[in-house]
Amino acid sequence: MTQPFAFNLKATDGTARLGEVVTPRGTIRTPAFMPVGTAATVKAMFTEHVKATGTDILLGNTYHLMLRPGAERVARLGGLHKFMRWDGPILTDSGGFQVMSLSKLRTLSEKGVVFQSHIDGSRHEMSPERSIEIQCLLGSDIQMQLDECVALPASRAETERAMELSLRWAERSRTAFKAMSQPGAAMFGIVQGGTEPDLRHRSARALAAMDCEGYSIGGLAVGEPQEVMLDTISATVPDLPAGKPRYLMGVGTPQDILLSVERGIDMFDCVMPTRAGRHGLAYTWDGKLNMKNAAHADDPRPIDPLLDAPPARDYSRAYLHHLVRSEELLAGMLLTWNNVAFYQALMAGIRASIAQGRFQQFKNETLARMAVKAKSE
Amino acid sequence: MTQPFAFNLKATDGTARLGEVVTPRGTIRTPAFMPVGTAATVKAMFTEHVKATGTDILLGNTYHLMLRPGAERVARLGGLHKFMRWDGPILTDSGGFQVMSLSKLRTLSEKGVVFQSHIDGSRHEMSPERSIEIQCLLGSDIQMQLDECVALPASRAETERAMELSLRWAERSRTAFKAMSQPGAAMFGIVQGGTEPDLRHRSARALAAMDCEGYSIGGLAVGEPQEVMLDTISATVPDLPAGKPRYLMGVGTPQDILLSVERGIDMFDCVMPTRAGRHGLAYTWDGKLNMKNAAHADDPRPIDPLLDAPPARDYSRAYLHHLVRSEELLAGMLLTWNNVAFYQALMAGIRASIAQGRFQQFKNETLARMAVKAKSE
Repeated sequence: MTQPFAFNLKATDGTARLGEVVTPRGTIRTPAFMPVGTAATVKAMFTEHVKATGTDILLGNTYHLMLRPGAERVARLGGLHKFMRWDGPILTDSGGFQVMSLSKLRTLSEKGVVFQSHIDGSRHEMSPERSIEIQCLLGSDIQMQLDECVALPASRAETERAMELSLRWAERSRTAFKAMSQPGAAMFGIVQGGTEPDLRHRSARALAAMDCEGYSIGGLAVGEPQEVMLDTISATVPDLPAGKPRYLMGVGTPQDILLSVERGIDMFDCVMPTRAGRHGLAYTWDGKLNMKNAAHADDPRPIDPLLDAPPARDYSRAYLHHLVRSEELLAGMLLTWNNVAFYQALMAGIRASIAQGRFQQFKNETLARMAVKAKSE
Repeated sequence: MTQPFAFNLKATDGTARLGEVVTPRGTIRTPAFMPVGTAATVKAMFTEHVKATGTDILLGNTYHLMLRPGAERVARLGGLHKFMRWDGPILTDSGGFQVMSLSKLRTLSEKGVVFQSHIDGSRHEMSPERSIEIQCLLGSDIQMQLDECVALPASRAETERAMELSLRWAERSRTAFKAMSQPGAAMFGIVQGGTEPDLRHRSARALAAMDCEGYSIGGLAVGEPQEVMLDTISATVPDLPAGKPRYLMGVGTPQDILLSVERGIDMFDCVMPTRAGRHGLAYTWDGKLNMKNAAHADDPRPIDPLLDAPPARDYSRAYLHHLVRSEELLAGMLLTWNNVAFYQALMAGIRASIAQGRFQQFKNETLARMAVKAKSE
């Protein structure tokens, strides 16, 4: 029998939560960070190394995968897991966010979105039903409803319109998901409503009534101040069912993650660690190191001898500096790996501190250490 | 006591030779292929994976390393092996070839070459003595004399002048090497003389009298027809001491290697497998596959299930095609690894066939298989 999807809350510390999301493809320890594997690859990393960092789940981007290599092709080849050689759970977004940010000539209607591919200009339709169908073809374990995410700042009227449309799309997504999905798969509804607390309340309550397997908070980390983001999270979380996982989409910095876990978030994804790795930046407990800086040229020390990952432990800063300066591919390979390992070490630290009832102490010490070093860099 | 440098000839099959080069850092099985690690990295590969392909020795480029990160800096950081995390032997070229092909505003004299860096325009001097000094600072196990490699075609007079200059530089290199090198290190003299058999004879005999640890054949694979290259090898090898290793610089395709081993060559280096990997090409026993071709888009087969290397065995051609089309870094990572693994499998096949006295059969079957498939591609 297929393992049903489940969320087990194991401990709380204030509003912070320790838990696990159980899926047929494995258990996700929460709070969890999901590295982004946009085009069926976590850029510059072997999946074996991603796994070894303590990553339990990857994120795939429906928009990119539907355009290239194509969802039907991935299905014929045995699904996304087999295609990219990742046997753990995969969460996919709906594609909606990137349709709006990357594609050309978009036309939005009640039915869905018609758009042109940014790759070859080909015409595509995306509806709530088609998004779920694509995610099922990919074999996604945790699927997202199609929503409309408005750019901030937006008028209240525009925010409300998009939130209401997203709710109607949630209903249609739920119907499609129930008809099409494999046993054990999950669908998350996405709370919208911009920075208007009452719209967020309405969105969250309406979604809760749909009894989704989990809930995402969308429409944040799109340019608003951190404080506004955190206030919106605080206003939204109480309306979400305590027994379901909560996923803050596209967030964020280590600081964002600590402050969002504090407010009851369980799952995160962000391109920061992987993108930064390709741009010569190394995440550490003392903040980010810009490996391009001449200060590293003669430094025989590793990035962090205590981080249990080869790129942090086994290579000198001088060597990494040389690779970045020489624009060698190995620079991006090593720094991406380091950064994913650091993010997973951060999540492991968060989980351990919640289990031991000392999350506040862990959060404060980590924020202080990062801030002090960030100033002295 | 430091293991002295040695060459042990273990078997011959016609003119083809099976042997081993023994160095303080390990034994090199010959015929050997040396992947190129230009700037202290085999591009897009972890050294652990390079080692796992059966690679016994890497090549480093003195010209690149002296300019960035700098030989004195590498020495302060503990040497090239520690810097790049490769504990096996490293062979370095003299830097001369790339001074002539990459640098700006070169001035050649009896003393050496003055040139400007292609990176930042800084002025540098390269003499036979400085080249050896740099190679010693890097900690190179097998060092090359500085020589002058003229571009082909060249006049006989120009070829002779450069060959004679290279012989005088060999003497100076030898003196410097004896004064500066670590125990167990080796210095190879480089035979020049273009495609003039009598000049090659004179060069080889004069170098043999210097009792170098090994001998390189330089100035080939610079644009001449393969037949001319092979004839020049055949004309040169008989003048080289049978008890010393013979290294054909910068060669080549699998076909070049098979035909050169047949003529008595023991060591090779070439950027082809690594460069091709970054350009979407996969070497196989059936020739090169261009993974960008649409023919691979739906092909679930691996590149080669019998090649004992993860990139050849564990990923579908469809996935590799997708990665190449999407310009993902993982494409270059996997195809480079596949290609180095293929080259090492080719060398292992060559060595086994010499040991069993069936080199001709192995060579003919391999050439036929590659040629047939090359036509049908």
